[in-house]
Amino acid sequence: MRTASGIYRQKLDHPGGRTEIVIGAGALSGEASGLADWLEGRTVFVLSTPRLAELHGEVLESLGGAAARVVRLEVPDGEQAKSLAHAGRLWDEMLESGGKRDSRLIAFGGGTVGDLGGFVAGCFLRGIEVVQAPTTLLAQVDAAIGGKTAIDLTGGKNTVGLFHHPARVIEDTALLATLPRAELRSGLVEVVKMAALLSPPLLERVEQELDALLAADAAALAPVVAGAAAAKCGVVERDPAEGGWRRILNFGHTLGHAIEGALNYSHLRHGEAVAYGMLFALQLAHSRGLDETLGERLRGLLGRFELPPLPPLEPADLWALMSRDKKATESGLTWVLPRALGHGEMVSGIDRGEVFQQLETFLPDPFARPPFSL
Amino acid sequence: MRTASGIYRQKLDHPGGRTEIVIGAGALSGEASGLADWLEGRTVFVLSTPRLAELHGEVLESLGGAAARVVRLEVPDGEQAKSLAHAGRLWDEMLESGGKRDSRLIAFGGGTVGDLGGFVAGCFLRGIEVVQAPTTLLAQVDAAIGGKTAIDLTGGKNTVGLFHHPARVIEDTALLATLPRAELRSGLVEVVKMAALLSPPLLERVEQELDALLAADAAALAPVVAGAAAAKCGVVERDPAEGGWRRILNFGHTLGHAIEGALNYSHLRHGEAVAYGMLFALQLAHSRGLDETLGERLRGLLGRFELPPLPPLEPADLWALMSRDKKATESGLTWVLPRALGHGEMVSGIDRGEVFQQLETFLPDPFARPPFSL
Repeated sequence: MRTASGIYRQKLDHPGGRTEIVIGAGALSGEASGLADWLEGRTVFVLSTPRLAELHGEVLESLGGAAARVVRLEVPDGEQAKSLAHAGRLWDEMLESGGKRDSRLIAFGGGTVGDLGGFVAGCFLRGIEVVQAPTTLLAQVDAAIGGKTAIDLTGGKNTVGLFHHPARVIEDTALLATLPRAELRSGLVEVVKMAALLSPPLLERVEQELDALLAADAAALAPVVAGAAAAKCGVVERDPAEGGWRRILNFGHTLGHAIEGALNYSHLRHGEAVAYGMLFALQLAHSRGLDETLGERLRGLLGRFELPPLPPLEPADLWALMSRDKKATESGLTWVLPRALGHGEMVSGIDRGEVFQQLETFLPDPFARPPFSL
Repeated sequence: MRTASGIYRQKLDHPGGRTEIVIGAGALSGEASGLADWLEGRTVFVLSTPRLAELHGEVLESLGGAAARVVRLEVPDGEQAKSLAHAGRLWDEMLESGGKRDSRLIAFGGGTVGDLGGFVAGCFLRGIEVVQAPTTLLAQVDAAIGGKTAIDLTGGKNTVGLFHHPARVIEDTALLATLPRAELRSGLVEVVKMAALLSPPLLERVEQELDALLAADAAALAPVVAGAAAAKCGVVERDPAEGGWRRILNFGHTLGHAIEGALNYSHLRHGEAVAYGMLFALQLAHSRGLDETLGERLRGLLGRFELPPLPPLEPADLWALMSRDKKATESGLTWVLPRALGHGEMVSGIDRGEVFQQLETFLPDPFARPPFSL
């Protein structure tokens, strides 16, 4: 629902209650955020990073608002913050500064701050309430909604965490103006991911407004963020604990995660790797009978993203990484394959030989029209 | 429900599903445990300690049963195991040994193993299913049921954790035969705690069979463990997330925790400190108008426990520790005070002066008849 002020309001119902979602330019300003009641008389921890303090110092200062006491917590910029060591340090600081069961936490940052902040809040004194205030497009359209929290182990990313739904998600699209173009592109890939399998009108909007979106045009971004959030909410409400249907959001992520791992999380951003993952899933689906309409359309759209080229990779390395994926079960990998525009399905039991064969043709030229169909 | 084999079966319904509870001598033996389906085709992690491996090696060996693969995990005996460092090491081992989202964990041990095992399972890959197989009376009657998990920070015990209900709790009362008398006593205090405010028939049974219970008589223990488990299930079902009513289980724990902290977790076991905490709560309730019937009865029963004496303690130290209790909120402490046999209530806003005055008379002679009433 869009209000007169240009702020979109949505709700996500989950087993533990309801998440209010507020989206738009200026959503974090006192009145729009609606945080006063939630903060009143409480201690609030505000988690962020040095870079965000520099970029958005004024917004950050204002976040405590109506709280009785504001305690600032800081972690380094980047994925390195998502460690057990940082989580432990934050818990110590929260306890030492008098944190209680009715204290609150606001996670102000990108996916890293949101994942870590959600995890830290979810386990502190067995769980305090959290507000997610995502500052990147990637976090706004995906990570901040749905309650997934995590930290990394040496052996794998997001391998420790829990489901801890935020009380509120506040997505101020004005913050996106400071993002580098590559970061916007990475976030838009996740929008395309959801739009392709869940919302044809959203896909059309992205196709039409891609240039404005990549230029961080606030008027173009707010409805797209709201559309992606609505698609995500629909999936999460249907499957809160990622027991089945929620894996639809994993479109492009099976190979995407493996690409990131094989490149040691360098060269490509998450969304860029996922874009290649989607292209591969399309090829795999095509080889199993999907007609070419959706593949052509998505190759066309993703081609306009000017992705960095895919570095040379070995199928065997990718296969090993996929088999270790945390979403894998004892019975093997589940792929998310498109069935048509707006429809996807989970497919298990695709054997190593088939995946290898497809990777051999895909890796040298990911944007090529698939070489054959059934 | 008691079956012909002397095994009691109960269910606990919670927001995430249902916990099956199996209680009795031999409950862990293959057939009685009912674990075959839960384990079949999976990797199972079996968490325990060196001392338990020594005492119950054969039972421990048999636990993997129908699993495709059994991976043994070990932590040191004692509270030191409940650290972030041990949790991190276990997660690393689980990931390195190929743990997946559909892997299982069995926590075989006392409250420490249960708390840590539940926490580790609850956060590994955002949660794998766990079975609690408690080996102490304290864990069987209380900690293993209800989904509370935790580790300790330097600044406080059980300060990091989450609610993660076990799929099944298997309480083999035959294991209790190896427990020292002091450990049985500590567990029985928690039974008295629940019986006093929730189940008069259970209180009567404990009074009648105390000698047999303290001698680890299996025939006496099984129905008492089953009675306490039923009382606890009733409370947890009414308030799964400890939002209100579940705090009734905190009877005796407000001062009990503070006594443990002030003594640096030496001199008294948890249940022994809780016994003194209950006596103090009775005095506090009496000073606010409770008649003396219940107080006399519980002082009589706890007097038969032959508790170690309460070392000298300062009211100011205890107050400081209580104010830091993780159950405290910004608005202060909530006491659980008895109102009559089988009835308790939560009382907030008791001021420092009143608590100090009562502590001054209580600490030198905890078993004395309260000095005055309203």
